[in-house]
Amino acid sequence: MTRFHDLHHGADPLLLPNAWDVASAAALAEAGFAAVGTTSLGVAAAHGLPDAAGLARTETLTLARRLVALPVPVTVDLEAGFSDDPSEVADLAAELASIGVAGINLEDGRPGDVLVDVSTQVRLLQAVKQRAPGLFLNARTDTHWFDPAAPVHEAVRRGRAYAGAGADGVFVPGLAAPDDVRALVAGVDRPVNLLHLPGRTSVRELAALGVRRISTGSLLFRAAVGAAVAAAEAVRDDRPLDAATPTYADIQRRSSALWGRPEQ
Amino acid sequence: MTRFHDLHHGADPLLLPNAWDVASAAALAEAGFAAVGTTSLGVAAAHGLPDAAGLARTETLTLARRLVALPVPVTVDLEAGFSDDPSEVADLAAELASIGVAGINLEDGRPGDVLVDVSTQVRLLQAVKQRAPGLFLNARTDTHWFDPAAPVHEAVRRGRAYAGAGADGVFVPGLAAPDDVRALVAGVDRPVNLLHLPGRTSVRELAALGVRRISTGSLLFRAAVGAAVAAAEAVRDDRPLDAATPTYADIQRRSSALWGRPEQ
Repeated sequence: MTRFHDLHHGADPLLLPNAWDVASAAALAEAGFAAVGTTSLGVAAAHGLPDAAGLARTETLTLARRLVALPVPVTVDLEAGFSDDPSEVADLAAELASIGVAGINLEDGRPGDVLVDVSTQVRLLQAVKQRAPGLFLNARTDTHWFDPAAPVHEAVRRGRAYAGAGADGVFVPGLAAPDDVRALVAGVDRPVNLLHLPGRTSVRELAALGVRRISTGSLLFRAAVGAAVAAAEAVRDDRPLDAATPTYADIQRRSSALWGRPEQ
Repeated sequence: MTRFHDLHHGADPLLLPNAWDVASAAALAEAGFAAVGTTSLGVAAAHGLPDAAGLARTETLTLARRLVALPVPVTVDLEAGFSDDPSEVADLAAELASIGVAGINLEDGRPGDVLVDVSTQVRLLQAVKQRAPGLFLNARTDTHWFDPAAPVHEAVRRGRAYAGAGADGVFVPGLAAPDDVRALVAGVDRPVNLLHLPGRTSVRELAALGVRRISTGSLLFRAAVGAAVAAAEAVRDDRPLDAATPTYADIQRRSSALWGRPEQ
């Protein structure tokens, strides 16, 4: 058991904030979050690439190499693995494990908003688990990401199959109805991870339903982009800015501290 | 005269928001800003590097290659040029011009918060202007960045020397006192660029003093990092989020539109 695995079995669920670059990850670690994930939307969009299109392999790996210098465990969103070949995805997972990444996400959605066959995803997860057994393998099913009204039994069916293939956790973004959450938690013998949906779920409610990990997904990235535009418009319109903005020295101190650590 | 040069000679000064990645730049362009710059602090920190240390050449060039797909002119902060060799800096400037970048910033501060000799900076600016005459060459002096209480005549002396070396604009971040701003505008025969200092300057006041370009520097990047942490803390504490956050679809639409354009 690594420290990151343990975080899924504590008194409270793991609230996992998702970063998209080193500065956001360093700020979240410094704010006291126990671990940091990445958001594939944020990583892709930061480099001008669409999300979930399998295009951001290099950018994701480059970022991961820098994030492992942080003092908290890091888990990396790999979309569907950036390849249709399970052995290539397994190689990437092994490389991430070797540099000190604690976990990965692999999703069963494919470009065009289609779910891949369960058997195909099972072969992928098996290949990855075999090559990188120490990574926390979070298997995401996009049943409810693509269709929030999907029946929960489809998520349970996929979650069970992925657990059987070696997944350490099951992630169902988009699932939120309390009865569905209960059914998923009861039906899958792995820590269940849900996406926080602003205005629809709360950490406390999800914890009470048995959810063990709560991700912010792309929310922080989107809040950041929104805040940047809002700040520019405030300057333009001579309105006051949010007082929570860190100083130049705050940012520079974090970068300098990371730069002093060996990069992998 | 390019469109970007013209923006320094309009009825109002150019308010230049500074982005650090493709997503922030695309959002600012879509918000209606006439041009977008980069912030060296943001670009460096996004990759875990300290600012003004000459370390982010590759990251800056990679970003610039993607930003030229935007529908607005882009100007790139090159710190001190990422090299002590003027010909290497000139090569970088020529490469940026060749891919469609509209302008660059070059500063006379050097690591350790020291100002380089005027003659050294003049040789650098001359070399760059000769190799990339069409770029808007914004010469930054760090007189007031390093010492806000520095006498304005030092900024004027450097600004004149840099204008004589071929600079198209003079940037003095940290200068803010109205009498000093007037002296700089009167003393330098080039568009003057200042950094917006929240709570100390306003676009309207700087415009009235004759400033032709107003940069946000690292402010938007810092606001973004602050907003990301604040959003994570709001989720943790079950507080409502800022309503100005763009949606997943907003971000994905911008990336997909850029991805459809040829990358340089």
